[in-house]
Amino acid sequence: MDQKRTEIAQLGEFGLIDRIKSNFSLQNPTSLKGIGDDAAVIDIGTENVLISTDMMLEGIHFDLAYMPLQHLGYKAVAINVSDIAAMNGKPEQIIIGLGLSNRFSLEAVDMLYEGINAACKNYKVDLVGGDTTSSSSGLVISITIIGRAAKEKTVLRSGAKNNDIICVTGDLGAAFLGLQILEREKQVYQANPQMQPDLEKYEYLVGRQLKPEARMDIVYELAEKNIVPTSMIDISDGLASELLHLGKNSNTGSKIFEDKIPIDALAYDTAIEFKIDPTTTALNGGEDYELLFTIKASDFEPLKNHPDIHFIGHMHDNVNQNVMISKQGTVVPIQAQGWKHF
Amino acid sequence: MDQKRTEIAQLGEFGLIDRIKSNFSLQNPTSLKGIGDDAAVIDIGTENVLISTDMMLEGIHFDLAYMPLQHLGYKAVAINVSDIAAMNGKPEQIIIGLGLSNRFSLEAVDMLYEGINAACKNYKVDLVGGDTTSSSSGLVISITIIGRAAKEKTVLRSGAKNNDIICVTGDLGAAFLGLQILEREKQVYQANPQMQPDLEKYEYLVGRQLKPEARMDIVYELAEKNIVPTSMIDISDGLASELLHLGKNSNTGSKIFEDKIPIDALAYDTAIEFKIDPTTTALNGGEDYELLFTIKASDFEPLKNHPDIHFIGHMHDNVNQNVMISKQGTVVPIQAQGWKHF
Repeated sequence: MDQKRTEIAQLGEFGLIDRIKSNFSLQNPTSLKGIGDDAAVIDIGTENVLISTDMMLEGIHFDLAYMPLQHLGYKAVAINVSDIAAMNGKPEQIIIGLGLSNRFSLEAVDMLYEGINAACKNYKVDLVGGDTTSSSSGLVISITIIGRAAKEKTVLRSGAKNNDIICVTGDLGAAFLGLQILEREKQVYQANPQMQPDLEKYEYLVGRQLKPEARMDIVYELAEKNIVPTSMIDISDGLASELLHLGKNSNTGSKIFEDKIPIDALAYDTAIEFKIDPTTTALNGGEDYELLFTIKASDFEPLKNHPDIHFIGHMHDNVNQNVMISKQGTVVPIQAQGWKHF
Repeated sequence: MDQKRTEIAQLGEFGLIDRIKSNFSLQNPTSLKGIGDDAAVIDIGTENVLISTDMMLEGIHFDLAYMPLQHLGYKAVAINVSDIAAMNGKPEQIIIGLGLSNRFSLEAVDMLYEGINAACKNYKVDLVGGDTTSSSSGLVISITIIGRAAKEKTVLRSGAKNNDIICVTGDLGAAFLGLQILEREKQVYQANPQMQPDLEKYEYLVGRQLKPEARMDIVYELAEKNIVPTSMIDISDGLASELLHLGKNSNTGSKIFEDKIPIDALAYDTAIEFKIDPTTTALNGGEDYELLFTIKASDFEPLKNHPDIHFIGHMHDNVNQNVMISKQGTVVPIQAQGWKHF
C-alpha cells in the first residue's frame, strides 16, 4: 500500500486520546462526561453512574513468570476500583472480558478468579457479567467497572483552583522498584535455575507491584469528614504525569516541593541501589495507584494530622507552569512522561 | 508442576460460565441480575441500567485479510448493541478497551474509529471512555455497552411460559455462509494473487458477516405496539443454542418447525453449493445477531403481518424437551452447540 503511514508513537498516548475524542461528540443527555477523566459520568437522576475500563495484556502489563494468577486477578480489579476512587465514587459492579489461550488450564482460570473474587469481596464489588473467549496468543483481561457517586460529590480532574493544596496518599515509587526487583531476580533465575530468588528483603516493594490496593479507605474517610476534593486522579503513570493532567484540566499550574513527596525508606534505599534518583521513581515510576487530589485551603485543618495524606504543594494561576522546588531549592519543570507501552 | 490440569474445552463455554457464577455471590442491592443473561441489570431507581461486554481478538473473531477495519469497528459496536436490544433496552454509552500492536499505524486506528463512529451515530450511542494500550500480538477490541430500560420492560431470558409463541427476526445462517465465502476466496487469492475474489454474487451473505446490524428497529417497533416479549436473546451462536438458553432459563421446553425457520434464498442456494444443510446453518451457524423472543399468544394479532418477524413454534411445559419438527414431519431433538473458540 502506498498510503501514508504514521506511527502511533509519534502522537503518544495522550495525543491519540485527544484525536479520538475530537472525532466523537456526545448525543445522549445522560452522557455527562465522556473521554478524558478517570471514569465516564452518566446521569441517572439524583446520582451519577461512573464507568471505567482497564485492559491488561500478557507481555505488556504483566509477566506470568513472576505474577501469580491470583495476584493478577486481584490487581486487575483493584486498578479499576482505583479509577472509581479517583472520581470520589463507590465501586459496585464489574464485568470481565477474558481471552485465554489453550496454555491455560481450568485450574489456572480458577486461580485467576480466586484473586478476582478476593478483590470483589474486599471492595464490595459484584461480578455481574462478562465475555470469555479463547485467545491465539496470551492472556487478555479487560475489566469494566461501574460505580456511583452523589452528584455534588463526583470529583473530576477539572475542579482545582488557585491556592488549592495538592495532596497525595501513601508513598510513591515503590511499585516501580518492585518491578525492577522482579525483573532482576527473573534474570538471575534464568541464568541459573538453582538460584532461588531472594525477595524477602524487598517484600514491601514487590507487594506494591504485585498486589496494589485502591485507596477506597481514603474516599470513605474524606466522606466522613465531609470533605470533597476539588480535583482528583489516581496515580497510575507517576506523579508528574497525573499532576499535569490535573493542571491541564483545571486550567491551573502547580508547584510541588521535592522534600514533601512521600517515599518509603526501603524504596529510597533500593532506588539508590539501582542507581536511580528516588524522586524520579516517584515522579515517573507509575503503578502506585495512590490518589492525587486537591483541596480548598479551608479543608486542610481536619486533614493535617492524617498519617497517610501528604501535602506536597499547591495550585496557582500560571497555567502550564508546573514546577518542583528541589531539595536544593532550585526550580525544576515537571515533565510529561511519554507512553511506556508504545 | 505436578498439579492437576483440566482443559477448559472439557467444560465448554457454558460449563465455565456456570462454574464462575457459582463462586460469586452478589453483595450490592443494586445488582439485580448478574451473570447469565445478555446483559447485567443494575437498579437505578425508576429504571434499570443494562451492561454487557464483548471481546474480539484478532485470529479468533476476525481476520484482517478480509475484514476491513471500518467494518470491524462497526461490528464491534453492533454486536454490543445487539445485547442491549436482547434485553429490550435502549443503548446509550460505550467504553472501549483497545490493544494495538505496532503493526497498526495511526491511519489504521483512524479507520477502525471511523467504523466505531458510524455505528455510534446509527445507534445513537456515545463513546464515553476507554483504555488504549499496545499489544504484543494482534488487535484486541473489548467494548462494554451501557443501556437502559424501564423496569417493567426489561426482558430477561427467563420469562417464557407454556404456549408462548417463539419469534425470530430477519433470516438466519447468512452470516455463517458469508464467512465460508470469505475463507474460500482468501484461499483462492493466497494460491494465486492474480485472481481477484468474486464476491459480488454473494454480496448479501458477505455483508451479513462483515457488517451485521443490531435489531434496534424491532425493539422500537415492539415498544410502539406496546408489546413486551416474555423472554428474549440475540442470536450470536445459532438458533439452537439460543433456544436452549431460553428454555433452560424459563424452565420450559420448546417446539419449532423447520419449515418456519427464515432462510434467505441466496443463503439456501449457497448452503447447497457448500454441501451444508441450509437448516444447519440457521441452527448452528451463528453471528446473525437477529432476535429470538417469545410472546404471549394474545400479542400475536398485532404482529402477525410483520414482514420481518417469523413465528417458528411455541414453548411448552416439558422442560428439557426441545425439538424441531422437520419438513418430513419427524421429531428432531435440538442439540446444544459446543463452543467454537476453544
